[in-house]
Amino acid sequence: MSSKYNIVSLIRKKRDGKVLTSNEISYIVEAYTKNEIEDYQASAFLMASFLNGLNADESAALTDSMLHSGIVVDLSSVSGKKVDKHSTGGVGDKLSLILAPVVASAGVPVPMISGRGLGHTGGTLDKLESIPGFTVDMDLDRYLDIITKHGLVLAGQTKEIAPADKKLYSLRDVTATVESIPLIAGSIMSKKLAEGIDALVLDVKYGSGAFMKELDDAIELAETLVSIGEKFNKKTVAYLTNMDQPLGFKIGNWLEVEECVEALQGDGPEDIMKLSNLLSGTMIWLGGRAENVEEGIRISEQQISGGYAFRKWIDIVEEQGGDSSVIKDLSKYPKAEYEFELHSKVEGYVSGMNSYEIGIASLELGAGRVSIEDKIDPMAGITLEKKVGDKITKGETILTGFTNKPAMIETVTEQLYGAVEISREKPEIKPLVTHVSDSEGTRAFEL
Amino acid sequence: MSSKYNIVSLIRKKRDGKVLTSNEISYIVEAYTKNEIEDYQASAFLMASFLNGLNADESAALTDSMLHSGIVVDLSSVSGKKVDKHSTGGVGDKLSLILAPVVASAGVPVPMISGRGLGHTGGTLDKLESIPGFTVDMDLDRYLDIITKHGLVLAGQTKEIAPADKKLYSLRDVTATVESIPLIAGSIMSKKLAEGIDALVLDVKYGSGAFMKELDDAIELAETLVSIGEKFNKKTVAYLTNMDQPLGFKIGNWLEVEECVEALQGDGPEDIMKLSNLLSGTMIWLGGRAENVEEGIRISEQQISGGYAFRKWIDIVEEQGGDSSVIKDLSKYPKAEYEFELHSKVEGYVSGMNSYEIGIASLELGAGRVSIEDKIDPMAGITLEKKVGDKITKGETILTGFTNKPAMIETVTEQLYGAVEISREKPEIKPLVTHVSDSEGTRAFEL
Repeated sequence: MSSKYNIVSLIRKKRDGKVLTSNEISYIVEAYTKNEIEDYQASAFLMASFLNGLNADESAALTDSMLHSGIVVDLSSVSGKKVDKHSTGGVGDKLSLILAPVVASAGVPVPMISGRGLGHTGGTLDKLESIPGFTVDMDLDRYLDIITKHGLVLAGQTKEIAPADKKLYSLRDVTATVESIPLIAGSIMSKKLAEGIDALVLDVKYGSGAFMKELDDAIELAETLVSIGEKFNKKTVAYLTNMDQPLGFKIGNWLEVEECVEALQGDGPEDIMKLSNLLSGTMIWLGGRAENVEEGIRISEQQISGGYAFRKWIDIVEEQGGDSSVIKDLSKYPKAEYEFELHSKVEGYVSGMNSYEIGIASLELGAGRVSIEDKIDPMAGITLEKKVGDKITKGETILTGFTNKPAMIETVTEQLYGAVEISREKPEIKPLVTHVSDSEGTRAFEL
Repeated sequence: MSSKYNIVSLIRKKRDGKVLTSNEISYIVEAYTKNEIEDYQASAFLMASFLNGLNADESAALTDSMLHSGIVVDLSSVSGKKVDKHSTGGVGDKLSLILAPVVASAGVPVPMISGRGLGHTGGTLDKLESIPGFTVDMDLDRYLDIITKHGLVLAGQTKEIAPADKKLYSLRDVTATVESIPLIAGSIMSKKLAEGIDALVLDVKYGSGAFMKELDDAIELAETLVSIGEKFNKKTVAYLTNMDQPLGFKIGNWLEVEECVEALQGDGPEDIMKLSNLLSGTMIWLGGRAENVEEGIRISEQQISGGYAFRKWIDIVEEQGGDSSVIKDLSKYPKAEYEFELHSKVEGYVSGMNSYEIGIASLELGAGRVSIEDKIDPMAGITLEKKVGDKITKGETILTGFTNKPAMIETVTEQLYGAVEISREKPEIKPLVTHVSDSEGTRAFEL
């Protein structure tokens, strides 16, 4: 190698807790992407970065070099400020499918590139693909066509987008270096910035069903994401949201599409509607179509009540090859072969629903994948009949499971009993959104 | 893999600062040796261990599994307690070649397996191989034959000895995970314990010419080595010795053999004789041939003055194929083609000799290798004319360099001027040995 950098010296520098320059970070990312650095050296560097951290400049340099490892989409031909949203992932979090058509119908273009589910949380792409015929795979020309025509596109990550992130992420996955705030932030932001956006809304989740169990870690992640966004001159707003129980009532790919359709028709659960309107409202404001977030929320509500959001949703489903007849009539979708109910053994109040356990149960029923090659069953999942705070009598149904794998029912039933807590006293309900983080810092914000 | 362990979980455990069980450590070492764990996973584990440390039990487990990755030599057929010595390496440290014949001639068997030089310090094997015909490569049968016949053998590490250490060391070298005390200790002890020894003397060096620059780190390494030795029921004594200036006057492979021959004939430099007799004396005591270290030292001196040590040296040189005529008459050895002297530009006292810089200069003159494939020039090296504390006049020779690479002379001369410090005041001379560490702890010990 004729480079002026030596990878062993750079690993040593990070190992010893020193700060790397932007050029040094770029060298590592570029050389690794070109296979000029070995996997075992990249993994040693990742572990040293995990344990000694990367500061704001290093995180921005990492993002920048991963971003420029591939193409950055030029959306200047699409008029208006392009705004996207990213969620760090939670059980039952299907909000992208609601807010994308809401925001696009309000005149703010949403060029959304999403990921697949891995672990206990579902992925937007898997949910979209539960709609018969819907395709998320497309080349750049088609991506530009769709966003130009509809002000909205729902695509998967192509190989041209941040290939360095793809390679590094695969390595992190097998070397226990995933849960690092700067590495997570770099991975998220490099992909989002590559979409060609002008602004970004983030839903950073914490609690039992989220990757970040603690609020403090979630705040640190939110602030890192915002600081990277600001360094790239993209207005970035992050909400900190509680994931101690699943979002909405439905978990599983098609089940979540169903709940989104209900929401787009103005008939969604309260938590879903509130959070979705907050995020949509913020996107509409960042897109320059509202004076402030409050006005954005009002516009968001109107896009739903006026039927504009649902119409946009039908348009995009049809544009991307989906069968809109099942969207227009949800009862036409096939059902899972097996259904089972979980009944309360006592009387009282639902006081806890461990989203992580419920997410894993849904995965085991067929809704998720253990390894990247696993096939997903779009019909599998769980419908909650109760949520935290609800009164329940003995024998009443807590939730219903749907699966095509009957052998899993017994195991999963056991797990689900362990995931639901019932107490005699009515529990205190935690607010759904607790903080907001933007260029001015982090402050309390309740919803 | 059908193992009950998952490597990613084990990396995560160490990453999170938790303590691994002996079985978990054994799994990692064994599976890695069998190529069931990828290099990139092993390197992430090494970096996590480097940064979060391994405690005494983990270090012992690491040593044990590396030790048992190969054969442990059974020396029960050789009568007496077998004792070896290991030095962490210093510039001009040629003591193994002196104390091995001294101790063996006193009736304590020394089954010595040594390494090659890498970096600024020379290796025992390279020094031995500067004797024409001397071979350090042998199979186990031959190793047993020689130790049985002579109570002494000077061998290189065979592939049967601690192969896991060999594989892990190669990976550490390219992933900046070399300088970790528990990893260093495990590497040293797994090889030494594989020799079939009953006791071990360690020379743990610190200062500018040593791998450990700081006394505190050297003490930590000494204590880790002793604690591993004790866990394996091998009496282990470690001396902490100062390496702020080279040991003796001669640096370079054959030059060091020359100085050893002079020492074995009772005519070595004071520092060499004192340290060598201390280490030999301790080995003789551990081997049960003296009541205490002091008596061991007296015996060591007698083995030299009586000519027994030198005779043992000639025997082993001849047994291992070496030409003893050059040992008996040092002037018969060929000289390097080029010689150059470094003259003092001022009058005063030599107040500092940076051993690291001098070691690197010697390497560049041909005495060492930059990469493992480089060939060594046995004639190249440096002879000091002065040492720290000596008076020097303007123009007087500080040292002489020997090389067959004339192109290097100018560069090296510059470096060497930078390595030698001359002051007007007579400097304080630091003691050579400052501490001893054994099963009862570490305490001051001056020599």
